[in-house]
Amino acid sequence: MTRSPLTAAAALLAGAACAPAFAQSSVTLFGVVDVNVGWIKNDESSWQLGTNGMATGRLGFRGIEDLGGGLRAGFWLEGEINPDTGTSTASYGNGDGAIGGFNFRRRSTVSLFNPWGEIRLGRDNTPTHWNWAVFDPFGTTGVGNAQNIAIDRQLTQGTGGVYGTLVRANNMASYVLPGGTAGSGLVGQLSVAAGEDAPGNKYAGGRIGYSAGPYNVAAAYAETWLTADNSVKAKVWNIGGWWDFGVVRVSGIYNQIDISGGGFPGSQQDNWFIGATAPLDLWRFNISWGDARGGGTISGNNATQFAISANYELSVRTALYAIYSTINNSGNAGYRVTNASSPLTPGHNSQGVQVGVRHIF
Amino acid sequence: MTRSPLTAAAALLAGAACAPAFAQSSVTLFGVVDVNVGWIKNDESSWQLGTNGMATGRLGFRGIEDLGGGLRAGFWLEGEINPDTGTSTASYGNGDGAIGGFNFRRRSTVSLFNPWGEIRLGRDNTPTHWNWAVFDPFGTTGVGNAQNIAIDRQLTQGTGGVYGTLVRANNMASYVLPGGTAGSGLVGQLSVAAGEDAPGNKYAGGRIGYSAGPYNVAAAYAETWLTADNSVKAKVWNIGGWWDFGVVRVSGIYNQIDISGGGFPGSQQDNWFIGATAPLDLWRFNISWGDARGGGTISGNNATQFAISANYELSVRTALYAIYSTINNSGNAGYRVTNASSPLTPGHNSQGVQVGVRHIF
Amino acid sequence: MTRSPLTAAAALLAGAACAPAFAQSSVTLFGVVDVNVGWIKNDESSWQLGTNGMATGRLGFRGIEDLGGGLRAGFWLEGEINPDTGTSTASYGNGDGAIGGFNFRRRSTVSLFNPWGEIRLGRDNTPTHWNWAVFDPFGTTGVGNAQNIAIDRQLTQGTGGVYGTLVRANNMASYVLPGGTAGSGLVGQLSVAAGEDAPGNKYAGGRIGYSAGPYNVAAAYAETWLTADNSVKAKVWNIGGWWDFGVVRVSGIYNQIDISGGGFPGSQQDNWFIGATAPLDLWRFNISWGDARGGGTISGNNATQFAISANYELSVRTALYAIYSTINNSGNAGYRVTNASSPLTPGHNSQGVQVGVRHIF
Repeated sequence: MTRSPLTAAAALLAGAACAPAFAQSSVTLFGVVDVNVGWIKNDESSWQLGTNGMATGRLGFRGIEDLGGGLRAGFWLEGEINPDTGTSTASYGNGDGAIGGFNFRRRSTVSLFNPWGEIRLGRDNTPTHWNWAVFDPFGTTGVGNAQNIAIDRQLTQGTGGVYGTLVRANNMASYVLPGGTAGSGLVGQLSVAAGEDAPGNKYAGGRIGYSAGPYNVAAAYAETWLTADNSVKAKVWNIGGWWDFGVVRVSGIYNQIDISGGGFPGSQQDNWFIGATAPLDLWRFNISWGDARGGGTISGNNATQFAISANYELSVRTALYAIYSTINNSGNAGYRVTNASSPLTPGHNSQGVQVGVRHIF
Repeated sequence: MTRSPLTAAAALLAGAACAPAFAQSSVTLFGVVDVNVGWIKNDESSWQLGTNGMATGRLGFRGIEDLGGGLRAGFWLEGEINPDTGTSTASYGNGDGAIGGFNFRRRSTVSLFNPWGEIRLGRDNTPTHWNWAVFDPFGTTGVGNAQNIAIDRQLTQGTGGVYGTLVRANNMASYVLPGGTAGSGLVGQLSVAAGEDAPGNKYAGGRIGYSAGPYNVAAAYAETWLTADNSVKAKVWNIGGWWDFGVVRVSGIYNQIDISGGGFPGSQQDNWFIGATAPLDLWRFNISWGDARGGGTISGNNATQFAISANYELSVRTALYAIYSTINNSGNAGYRVTNASSPLTPGHNSQGVQVGVRHIF
Repeated sequence: MTRSPLTAAAALLAGAACAPAFAQSSVTLFGVVDVNVGWIKNDESSWQLGTNGMATGRLGFRGIEDLGGGLRAGFWLEGEINPDTGTSTASYGNGDGAIGGFNFRRRSTVSLFNPWGEIRLGRDNTPTHWNWAVFDPFGTTGVGNAQNIAIDRQLTQGTGGVYGTLVRANNMASYVLPGGTAGSGLVGQLSVAAGEDAPGNKYAGGRIGYSAGPYNVAAAYAETWLTADNSVKAKVWNIGGWWDFGVVRVSGIYNQIDISGGGFPGSQQDNWFIGATAPLDLWRFNISWGDARGGGTISGNNATQFAISANYELSVRTALYAIYSTINNSGNAGYRVTNASSPLTPGHNSQGVQVGVRHIF
């Protein structure tokens, strides 16, 4: 390969003059479409045509370039799609808010890889979110996922901002181990996010995990500076794992959030769940039991969630699914099985069913 | 093919760790760019660089997966593009409103097909809109299309909502005949849309059609619940067809809308048009005459439209076109040949010319 | 090839019924991801994870169809992406404003080419902007680009509208010479934009340039009608060029803006810069010195900018870069090295560093 420092700039200008593109073959277009018929019972019951029961709908573009000498460069642009309305949400995380148009707020990063690991820059999942993503058999979406009763999802979903870093952060720089974010062997990352979107985006955290044979275990810790004067901090740590017994794989997580400082009276939440997933021919059965317990300003706002599901794989890419979930709230807790618009009186219960299809492309 | 219930979930996580994508070859990227120079005369005349003269500009991604045993899965994501400004409109239908950013509001669906038909879930055209799309030689866009004087387009365009289901609905589940939505032989569909975006999205309707040799005929009926208490209903039915005489193909439609109930005084509109299209070598000539007649609260708000056009195909994908259209309003009718911003005093006439290029990719 | 005037319309409808797409191979997906770690010092200093240091992040789709007989058709859809937040800006030019969702406001055009040149319709760069794009070694983005101290960027960035045509215009029709917009040999274009987005979009301008062997030179002129009554006009002209001495390529531009008419007291700005770029193996070093001088209502609002950078190409597609720039403001000039949110008191100085990676796909 001939390299010339003049070529790239020339190519960008030439591109502007309709020259053929190079490197076209390096881009992978990928996505998920997940639509379901749902019956949700909060204060009232309603039928819905909803999305994201088994996996979050998405459309993305990504690519890897081999630079030689063990060095690689890559990019990743991925946004959420909601086929029930054709719109896109802002994808939970820092800097949320109504966008409506398609965007790349699930992940938009550029990376450099070498044998020692990866430097990744841009908007991305925070390390503390990965244990939920890896260890919950219901994933991070749908009526059955354990985060339905986690503080971040219920208190701030849709309004964005303050605790957004529990899922994603803008302006983040990460070092990722050679094993990757979520693979096998030793995995993990260290991440810091600039506070330029203040308050609530300044973040520092990390995750370390190991999997081999039948087991997988990981722990993560992070701090987020929630106020412009940096006096109020949210500290999050969690540990998760699974053990695969062959017939069934049992998994669980323990997650603790503590918000304090700056004269703020302080609030805490402890979450745990235990789940199991059992493949049977083309079927897969999932079950999970979760618990949320508030402390400080949200003391007594507790909840439990029980979820069960069955998936049937028509192919590797296409699956049918049915999920049932019920949440038992106490105190002023008002957790719901979905973030749909139907309201729920605090302390009342929420339940729902989703029957749908997930198609990966 | 080896199928494993563990594979898909693993692939989604692995994807997140930069694994190569599978099934990349299954995605089709498609679209239309249609730009024209227009002269529009409403209360005042103006020159415009506009879009969507011959076909609506769009960009989409779709794919079909063969699951074996006659079963297939598919997805369809398609949004409108306006190359004159680089923005996207919300695509007429339920839940309109300014979005600006690109979205998939033309159609976003997931489907399962078997020999008995197709189950389709998501945002889509309503069955009652298809007769306009199939039988108007001017299609569903541009100064010449017959829906310029249909109540849905003029009373609610851009504001969205109430009569949006005359074109598209959110949260829709459809059963489509094996012949498809608009093909040859027996075609048609039954569709219901959940009312979760209330009011005005709760919809139930169907369409049945048949084409063979020189003729094509279809009829459709639908009801939309317009108010939160479901007391006011919009009922729409239409019938359309064409006969191909070889030299010329003659087509027409009759469409009736009736809005009543809940103490609402009621309004009706009857629309019909008759059109003809004649291919001649690489040319095609279109002509149509349409009529709109209001009843009830819009009694006396009548209009006629006359349109004529010539297209020249540089290739199957690329065509040049010139369209002229004039609308004669009476009473308080204020129908315009485009939805461009130039205002029109009710009862006055509107006319326009568009000369442009339509490019399919 | 068999051509039939019936085929294209049939294909659009058939497409709607899940027919296979034709011409799929004609679409090129392309883009740039550019992310950097920046240190910006305006009134206060701050660390940022930013974008667009070396090139503007973008995602686009384009294609060319050979129609035979020397005739070609093409389309170009390109929008800006900001991987630090996953959102998209509206891309500087006429009709700006917050969009947030992805859009095609960098360029969205359809073109017909023949041996005599190209007709191009849609939103596009204006001819007067091309000399900045071609002759500034820092391109049109990042802390080092010479337009940081040009009136258009500082007075109207983000608010859009009035002087938007200094970069892009909506509703534009252009004739481009066979040599293209920015290639070798004789290049240039004539462009007019309809004033339908009034005020400030009505534009007429042109550019002519020539390059051969070591030199490249071009001049451009344009007028924009800034008010609805067309009484206030912005006139812009510029001339730029480079000479390649082998070891170093020296370039410069002179740009003058004059706004007057309609009883408006009138304001002017003169800009020039001189720059040099030197490739050395896989390295490239850039340096530039720019000057801005206000007249009329902004008399005394002057500034100078000094910028220096080093790029290292890991491949043709992937480069690392470091840029330093400092702006010296006098009078009420408040030019900043980036348009980031950190404020600057008029007359004070601005400086910044960006260290990042640019990846072309």
